[in-house]
Amino acid sequence: MDKQTIVNLKEKYTESLFKQVIPFWERHSPDWEHGGYFTCLERNGQVFDTDKFAWLQGREVWTFAKLCNWTEDLNREKKEKWLALARLGAEFLRDKGRSPEGDLYFALDRTGLPLVEPYNIFSEYFAAAGFAEFYRASGEEWALAEAKKSYDRIVVRKSNPKGKWTKQIGINRPMKAMGVCMMDTWLSGELEGIVPSPELTALGDAAEKQIFDLHIDRKLQTVFERVLPDGSHPDNMEGRLLNPGHALETLWFLLHRVAGKGDKAKINDIAEIMLWPAERGWDEKYGGFFYYQDYKGFPTEKLESDMKVWWVHAEALCAFLLAYKFTGDSRHEAWFKRVDEYTWKHFPDPEYGEWYGYLNRQGEPALSQKGGKWKGFFHLPRSLIVCIDWLNEMEKKSV
Amino acid sequence: MDKQTIVNLKEKYTESLFKQVIPFWERHSPDWEHGGYFTCLERNGQVFDTDKFAWLQGREVWTFAKLCNWTEDLNREKKEKWLALARLGAEFLRDKGRSPEGDLYFALDRTGLPLVEPYNIFSEYFAAAGFAEFYRASGEEWALAEAKKSYDRIVVRKSNPKGKWTKQIGINRPMKAMGVCMMDTWLSGELEGIVPSPELTALGDAAEKQIFDLHIDRKLQTVFERVLPDGSHPDNMEGRLLNPGHALETLWFLLHRVAGKGDKAKINDIAEIMLWPAERGWDEKYGGFFYYQDYKGFPTEKLESDMKVWWVHAEALCAFLLAYKFTGDSRHEAWFKRVDEYTWKHFPDPEYGEWYGYLNRQGEPALSQKGGKWKGFFHLPRSLIVCIDWLNEMEKKSV
Repeated sequence: MDKQTIVNLKEKYTESLFKQVIPFWERHSPDWEHGGYFTCLERNGQVFDTDKFAWLQGREVWTFAKLCNWTEDLNREKKEKWLALARLGAEFLRDKGRSPEGDLYFALDRTGLPLVEPYNIFSEYFAAAGFAEFYRASGEEWALAEAKKSYDRIVVRKSNPKGKWTKQIGINRPMKAMGVCMMDTWLSGELEGIVPSPELTALGDAAEKQIFDLHIDRKLQTVFERVLPDGSHPDNMEGRLLNPGHALETLWFLLHRVAGKGDKAKINDIAEIMLWPAERGWDEKYGGFFYYQDYKGFPTEKLESDMKVWWVHAEALCAFLLAYKFTGDSRHEAWFKRVDEYTWKHFPDPEYGEWYGYLNRQGEPALSQKGGKWKGFFHLPRSLIVCIDWLNEMEKKSV
Repeated sequence: MDKQTIVNLKEKYTESLFKQVIPFWERHSPDWEHGGYFTCLERNGQVFDTDKFAWLQGREVWTFAKLCNWTEDLNREKKEKWLALARLGAEFLRDKGRSPEGDLYFALDRTGLPLVEPYNIFSEYFAAAGFAEFYRASGEEWALAEAKKSYDRIVVRKSNPKGKWTKQIGINRPMKAMGVCMMDTWLSGELEGIVPSPELTALGDAAEKQIFDLHIDRKLQTVFERVLPDGSHPDNMEGRLLNPGHALETLWFLLHRVAGKGDKAKINDIAEIMLWPAERGWDEKYGGFFYYQDYKGFPTEKLESDMKVWWVHAEALCAFLLAYKFTGDSRHEAWFKRVDEYTWKHFPDPEYGEWYGYLNRQGEPALSQKGGKWKGFFHLPRSLIVCIDWLNEMEKKSV
């Protein structure tokens, strides 16, 4: 990539973040009356459901706090606004989010009345990262304590993440999912300064080991979502399930981690592995990555398998840009350009801002919402933030 | 409809059932080695997962047993084959299906090892109907006992269908779903001769009352899936959710029930109500019924909302044919013709038999399987069986 290309990309990503994405959430998401955020937002920002989902509350706290901590040269007024927005969600989670056992409910109504039990450990992961980032932005000790509390609950619950709500009978088919490892990889970076370093290193190391030992299959050149404890893949829907977006997200987290340790061989290895889900997951007919696939090409049990989903493409942009930044490999450059082109053509809504979340296979919006129960203010801004950072670094190094 | 139209339809439905549908399941579904049925069948019948799902096992027992009990004039050899096929699933459920508490696991592996806890009460409904039908076909007392056992478990569990796996905090938002009432309406007919009549009448009456009092909203001319105990609809995704296929299926169960009592006014009332989900649920652009809708036209949380799904159309055929049979109303005739035309154009697979399950909005197969975790040998053959019966009655009455 030449310097002009890098500069143009950086401008496009920066404009998208600050003109299209952030203003949409600043305007439509805050619930100044009851605290927390509305995330069920129609195409134009209209709130179509006021329930509050802990995943998305924690994620939005993280994003607004990250914006505060991110660039030194943004003006003070903006940072104060984002700090207030981050506080709105952090205080809501602190005051209303937890069950008597100290776990975060999955969903609450607008006022904070719990609606869905704390069956989902990922609520805790996003809250831990959100509180940590808010602590960095505000310096307020209660946020540090909340981040630690979430981390402690993760440690306690991790061996049985869904607790009494577990429906799988693990003793008969002890599948291991990649989700927890992926999140551990991310969290081990996010909790720096909150949890002692050796503990975080151990957390990240264990996750990295499971991903490399079990989920990455070098013989089959495939990243598997769910494996048996010996790394084998039962020949059924669960064992064959592939999720290209998840694989790419996990791989860029790993790449970021090993790059921090300066491990060149591992960097190249991960960048190479990244090409597997890309090549298998791309829809040659209509473009874009499929949501789910079956390793043997059988149908999956997920009806949404052929949809093109915003977060998959946001994470793929991160994956290929980061890989290209480290390797300079033209294959990663080509993949980045392919995803960038598809993404900007199909996802952004120039009329109302933000991206559509769910396109059909052909690339047209299948659902009109900009946010919902699962789509909030997170994957897209995080992707734009890190891509802008990396493009900045690339620009400085280029001639 | 003139006589020739009726005869032509009957031939088409009969040929489809006996040439396209039954042979596909007879050939590909039985597991003669371990008992029970494979239901994960690719387009050509190839088994792509050998796990066994209690819903679909019970449903397939019901269908094969129903074929035994159905027409007097089918030759003996066929009936013996179907009885053996029904027995294959009934014995598997009896021998492997139940937890120590006596509830049916949701999923088992090929050999019968339990994989998913008995969190889902509908397994019990389909098993009760399946065992009952098998008892009628075989006269074997153990099947009667199993049918009663399933019914007893339903009675015990109904007030808290998901038991300890319940994630909703009902005290804060006590939503009532239409699913259990719909199934009670069906089961009250299926268990005749198994459970004392007064008890079945009470079961059906209570279901009918809830559907009329709470789910059917005459002012809004809408059938709501989930309501509060006072029949109101909270203005959120849950409260606004519409499922046209579910509404039509429920309405034809009710129509069948009230017709048995000869209640003309109620027949006309239900037939009229049927037009509401039809008119709202039809996709004017591409044809077919949507899978899910939001009462106010907001996006739903279901990514598959715009898909055209086999069971929705199979049940819609039943609904409009039955309504037309009773009312002779040209609006029901027109709806039946519209659905019949769309259905036969898009769902059947002339090459390998059976119907595709999941079409995209445009009407093309989005997934290729003929069976899976949720699609088995049930909605389609049940629809064809009852439609053939009703067309027969109509033919006899026509001049």
